[in-house]
Amino acid sequence: MALGGNALGNTPEEQLKLVQETAQPIVDLVEKGYEVIIGHGNGPQVGMINLAMEFSANKGGNTPYMPFPECGAMTQGYIGYHLQQAIQAELNARGIRKPCATVVTQVVVDEKDPGFAKPTKPVGSFYTKEEADAIAAEKGFIFVEDAGRGYRRVVPSPIPQRIVELDVVEQLVSAGAIVITVGGGGIPVVETETGLKGVAAVIDKDRASALLARDVKADELIILTAVDRVCINFNKPDQQELASMTLAEAEEYIGQKQFAPGSMLPKVQSCMEFVKGNTNGGVALITSLARAADALEGKTGTIIKP
Amino acid sequence: MALGGNALGNTPEEQLKLVQETAQPIVDLVEKGYEVIIGHGNGPQVGMINLAMEFSANKGGNTPYMPFPECGAMTQGYIGYHLQQAIQAELNARGIRKPCATVVTQVVVDEKDPGFAKPTKPVGSFYTKEEADAIAAEKGFIFVEDAGRGYRRVVPSPIPQRIVELDVVEQLVSAGAIVITVGGGGIPVVETETGLKGVAAVIDKDRASALLARDVKADELIILTAVDRVCINFNKPDQQELASMTLAEAEEYIGQKQFAPGSMLPKVQSCMEFVKGNTNGGVALITSLARAADALEGKTGTIIKP
Repeated sequence: MALGGNALGNTPEEQLKLVQETAQPIVDLVEKGYEVIIGHGNGPQVGMINLAMEFSANKGGNTPYMPFPECGAMTQGYIGYHLQQAIQAELNARGIRKPCATVVTQVVVDEKDPGFAKPTKPVGSFYTKEEADAIAAEKGFIFVEDAGRGYRRVVPSPIPQRIVELDVVEQLVSAGAIVITVGGGGIPVVETETGLKGVAAVIDKDRASALLARDVKADELIILTAVDRVCINFNKPDQQELASMTLAEAEEYIGQKQFAPGSMLPKVQSCMEFVKGNTNGGVALITSLARAADALEGKTGTIIKP
Repeated sequence: MALGGNALGNTPEEQLKLVQETAQPIVDLVEKGYEVIIGHGNGPQVGMINLAMEFSANKGGNTPYMPFPECGAMTQGYIGYHLQQAIQAELNARGIRKPCATVVTQVVVDEKDPGFAKPTKPVGSFYTKEEADAIAAEKGFIFVEDAGRGYRRVVPSPIPQRIVELDVVEQLVSAGAIVITVGGGGIPVVETETGLKGVAAVIDKDRASALLARDVKADELIILTAVDRVCINFNKPDQQELASMTLAEAEEYIGQKQFAPGSMLPKVQSCMEFVKGNTNGGVALITSLARAADALEGKTGTIIKP
């Protein structure tokens, strides 16, 4: 199950409240007998931590500069802690004895991924052109002008290749635990001769969750988003909700540009990757958090199937 | 094995370098056939994150105030990521196939712990008396004057009672993994009617590691520190290194105030707790990181035994 980082709010107080709502459908699934693995986004959270660390380092807070992958690692601790606590509370409230824990997770990306040549994801503070040029010269960062608001660093969004802590996740699930993993799409690392090395990048959490789902041979990949069902002709008079689509139909819709890049498109593509790569006959489901349990009974949601 | 947070450096670059040295003796132990669980401190790291988040929230960084337990959760992600990566690299370099992962870990403390009535651990920024009074009135924090440098928030250091994710740690160790857990002594939580709740506190990482060692029925608790052996008459002409001490001898030395509070004393006490509570005949060892492997062969280190 992949949860959106936006669904976790913008402050620790909001997050602490929202994880309680998030825990409900997750434990509904546990009650139905599902073994649940949770991936989650971290857009607003890694943004916040990166901004705060940058602000403090630059403006006299006397704390060191914090690289981007390390900020991602921090979000895994921060979000995982709240999520596991809320899920543990909900399990206890329903009298279910099952552990729930967060595994700090690295995801390997390919240094030759075309994303590295063309970084697109803005992170961190806004700078003037002079400031941006100076930082670019010092640290090698790439900056782009952002809608008249100043210059902002951009990082690549490479395709996830391998989940480093996969064994550990599998062992825990086999032992009956609910596992929180690939937070923020995983901490992005590249393989070097001396081991793994963090890189400044943002891995799409739906793609990382799809890779994980394929590798653990999940029966189902569930991507939770803001809408109950995927639509075609979205926001037009002839908008149509989809109860299901085959891989061929999904390809056709993508050809028609039915799904917004950076929004529904990567979700549909992640589902397709999982369905294609899964040797288990697994299907994928896109729906909202609130209606996840209904969707599993076929009452809503969009199924992506071979 | 309990590692000191000070041994991890003050910046991400330092930490990334130091974890490589830390990985050596850990993998030495793995090669000798030990199943290793790693606890670690987070003093400098949680200080840094707490300071940066506070500075940014107060001084116009436009990021939210971050509570102290959440800062601790962040350090578990941040330190765990570096440690697991370095240990994985060292395992690979030696051709050992064994997973290593970090479990985000909460530790329950008692709300009635006497520590809560008398907080002693300084955290966060220095404030003027007026600023401190204003924050105290708003958030209920307790401030103390710190050596003429201003006012600083103090938090309690309660005794750890229960490791929430113990099951998960045990499952992973049984499955052959090296586990990093109770980072910074664990994220401090209290039990409430609706579940666990984070509290601003610092749990001693040696005490948390001792509790964990007892509960997993470890054969040995190893506390790594700056010296090879515990000494009596420390820094005096008749200083004497101890190769071992019984619980009774340790009690006697404590009565003589041989061990500095906040330094060697809690380490010795943690070892005593483990030795007393362990039904497995386990012993405890205090030594330096660099000589851990030697100490396990009896060449150095101080053994604490029944």
